[in-house]
Amino acid sequence: MILRPIGRVHSPYKTRADAPRQGRFSPGISEIVLSDQYLEGLSEIEKSPYLLVLCWFHQADRETLKAIPPHNRIEHGVFATRSPDRPNPISVEMVRLLGRDGNTLRVQWLDAIDGTPVLDIKPFSRELDCAEEGDV
Amino acid sequence: MILRPIGRVHSPYKTRADAPRQGRFSPGISEIVLSDQYLEGLSEIEKSPYLLVLCWFHQADRETLKAIPPHNRIEHGVFATRSPDRPNPISVEMVRLLGRDGNTLRVQWLDAIDGTPVLDIKPFSRELDCAEEGDV
Repeated sequence: MILRPIGRVHSPYKTRADAPRQGRFSPGISEIVLSDQYLEGLSEIEKSPYLLVLCWFHQADRETLKAIPPHNRIEHGVFATRSPDRPNPISVEMVRLLGRDGNTLRVQWLDAIDGTPVLDIKPFSRELDCAEEGDV
Repeated sequence: MILRPIGRVHSPYKTRADAPRQGRFSPGISEIVLSDQYLEGLSEIEKSPYLLVLCWFHQADRETLKAIPPHNRIEHGVFATRSPDRPNPISVEMVRLLGRDGNTLRVQWLDAIDGTPVLDIKPFSRELDCAEEGDV
């Protein structure tokens, strides 16, 4: 189970302290630059206005199992939080696709720091990815 | 970038052919059994009625970059599809948490086959994970 990065994030956030707590509420624009060997995998992606982007949070602490969420100051298990520090530090972020130029995607709402390895990109689907209104 | 499975899926689906095309539309119930060493990471998880479950689709073809989605018979790049066959075969599935017994979570909507390694569990958040109604 060895990961192969498919590309890197180019972002305005140079350190973890620079990054917004949640990219979803940030106006910052990032680029995802895919390695040339994966270019073919982007075919038809412009048809998806929203994407799920999976990154490897390479600066995360993989040993911790507890975290204190910002909105609820009770200690939680990491699997009950969105903390980047977790055994497999894979982020899942829903982003808006602003445009594509060859192997480069311009996106909004990503909070990964500059240089973060990208693992996967999937089209967002409301019917698959969202619970019904009123349920949460 | 080496993954450590945190647990395994126990599901009624024994082969890829058994699995529903999308667990989201299936009544099947699966269990996620965490390894004892990660039990502490589940603390407070019962407060999340919906979870994102990340699995490693160990039977996937990691070399293919093209796929034909079931609802749109045009060849797409894999990053424009939800195909399990992709360079890093990490699934992201939004599931309903039915209950927990120690290190075991009972969930609905997962489509992973029996024995699939689990990589991560995160609480679903509508404000982070869903684009606005009417946008997609």
